[in-house]
Amino acid sequence: MTEIRPINWTGTRLELLDQTLLPHQRSTISITDYRHAAAAITEMRVRGAPAIGVTAAYAMALAAAELQSRERDHFIGALRQAGAHIAAARPTAVNLGWAVRRMLRVAESEPDPGSILPRLETEARLIQAEDEAINRRIGEHGRALMPPDGQGVLTHCNTGALATSAFGTALGVIRAGWEAGGRFRVFNTETRPWLQGARLTSWEFQQLGIPATLVADSAAGMLMRRGDVSCVIAGADRIAANGDTANKIGTYALAVLAHENGIPCYIAAPTSTVDLALAHGDAIAIEERPEHEVTGYGGADIAPAGTAAYNPAFDVTPHRYITGIVTETMVCRPPYTESLRQAVDAA
Amino acid sequence: MTEIRPINWTGTRLELLDQTLLPHQRSTISITDYRHAAAAITEMRVRGAPAIGVTAAYAMALAAAELQSRERDHFIGALRQAGAHIAAARPTAVNLGWAVRRMLRVAESEPDPGSILPRLETEARLIQAEDEAINRRIGEHGRALMPPDGQGVLTHCNTGALATSAFGTALGVIRAGWEAGGRFRVFNTETRPWLQGARLTSWEFQQLGIPATLVADSAAGMLMRRGDVSCVIAGADRIAANGDTANKIGTYALAVLAHENGIPCYIAAPTSTVDLALAHGDAIAIEERPEHEVTGYGGADIAPAGTAAYNPAFDVTPHRYITGIVTETMVCRPPYTESLRQAVDAA
Repeated sequence: MTEIRPINWTGTRLELLDQTLLPHQRSTISITDYRHAAAAITEMRVRGAPAIGVTAAYAMALAAAELQSRERDHFIGALRQAGAHIAAARPTAVNLGWAVRRMLRVAESEPDPGSILPRLETEARLIQAEDEAINRRIGEHGRALMPPDGQGVLTHCNTGALATSAFGTALGVIRAGWEAGGRFRVFNTETRPWLQGARLTSWEFQQLGIPATLVADSAAGMLMRRGDVSCVIAGADRIAANGDTANKIGTYALAVLAHENGIPCYIAAPTSTVDLALAHGDAIAIEERPEHEVTGYGGADIAPAGTAAYNPAFDVTPHRYITGIVTETMVCRPPYTESLRQAVDAA
Repeated sequence: MTEIRPINWTGTRLELLDQTLLPHQRSTISITDYRHAAAAITEMRVRGAPAIGVTAAYAMALAAAELQSRERDHFIGALRQAGAHIAAARPTAVNLGWAVRRMLRVAESEPDPGSILPRLETEARLIQAEDEAINRRIGEHGRALMPPDGQGVLTHCNTGALATSAFGTALGVIRAGWEAGGRFRVFNTETRPWLQGARLTSWEFQQLGIPATLVADSAAGMLMRRGDVSCVIAGADRIAANGDTANKIGTYALAVLAHENGIPCYIAAPTSTVDLALAHGDAIAIEERPEHEVTGYGGADIAPAGTAAYNPAFDVTPHRYITGIVTETMVCRPPYTESLRQAVDAA
């Protein structure tokens, strides 16, 4: 099986698998301008918190290639401005700002302006390679949480290779469980309005040879109540110090439904997603996306012209609904204020 | 404002507003064969439990016109067979079998075979007129439950004029509240996979001049948690004696989320929807619809070819999540085993 790698760096260009066109078209965008990389994030040609982080890191390398100058302070200042532009591409995922800050720290620590570009390129490659390694460790930690053979796990949105450098987070846990011989059933939500589940997750499960059943978001509760689903696992875009988790819209509903049905609900995410500076989730900025993502699909209108829509891209799941948070260093359990700090310290 | 009436009887033909084409095309199907009326129900050209009941009643009149014979027993036998065919068009809504049985009882009570057709036609017209009157009474009983000005009510699927003879059930309660001067906010879910909310409910609210905001099904929980929604109201396809309610897939999730957020969740339905013969909801047959309704939209594929999907059209909400059931005779409160029987007896 060929690994899916949505982000490739050629040494001069950033190549992104255009996720707005999957699964029907497999097309790559070639980017040499950091502004275009930021636009690709805003337009969701690349999405998923870890993948956004990796893309931002390469965008900083592209910025350095464009802005490099012998005058070091001027160069660093220009990089900071480019970093602010890239970090503003989407508001919710912590990985975006995290990657930009990490790249800026490398630049700032390098006294020789001529060495900044190669060091940033190396750092971006490292962030990408680390992300894959981290995801494989998340899979190792998480696979024991998958249900016994014949029982079902439900996942939401896309948290696979496409959302990361490779392997994925929540989808990676499911994959690791299957690779370890587990033969549990897999359900995935379609994840309106952007249909990451129907378009991307169904495609990834096909590529992996893992049988999966697609359901409308609103069918998940019934599956839990009927006993078809005995475990929920989702990703995260930002996790507050107390475990409150921002993730794709609908995660909160799945977590409440799991809680009400006595089913465990897990979050799988790298420790880079943990934002210890945030005490709780209510302070997380929630991106509102265009109305037409809800009123239409694929260029066609669904609702009548003039229909108002509200389209939040994420919601916040309070920590009390989360059974465990699977990171690359450990499976965190409540109280998360302690376990998340431990997980971050161990990273 | 012109009332929307999706079902019209000309005296010889049944004319249905084709709900698969709304809101972009306003097209009427003209039906003279009861088998075509049954097919229109199966294909969801007409949908909504009360509208299905009215359509089934006229389908029985069409059957009588086709099958009438001077030999009374033979005629009644043929009508019973036609009734069984019509009642099998969709499994979940109780109104379908209810209307067919009511029409058969009229036929069976008429000794003169030559009078059966006119009596069935009259009875079907009566069922239709009663449905509108019932809905207006549901609106009267329910409007006091609507939130204060500025607060929000959320509804699911389509329960308006299009789902009934006219006026609607849950949507009718919202309409009655607005007509009584209430200026609460209205949210409606898009209701995947068939998008009754985005296509039909948004259109009805536009026709009524009631401002409404469309949201993805998965955004409802966040709206409740944030306080944007302080009341949920939905319809019903079948209500068991204990109050367990089968309704459009996703209703269960909305009811659990409302319960978890301390928000009332109401069901609005005529007493004809109450099935006192069913002790609880687990015995309600849940229709499974074609996979392509989830894997695609409007003829276009969303998921990759070969994706398996599970597409239940309804779910069952246990009575403990339901704050009240608004009928044409009274607002039923727990324990429903008592109040529903009272409501049915008063009808």
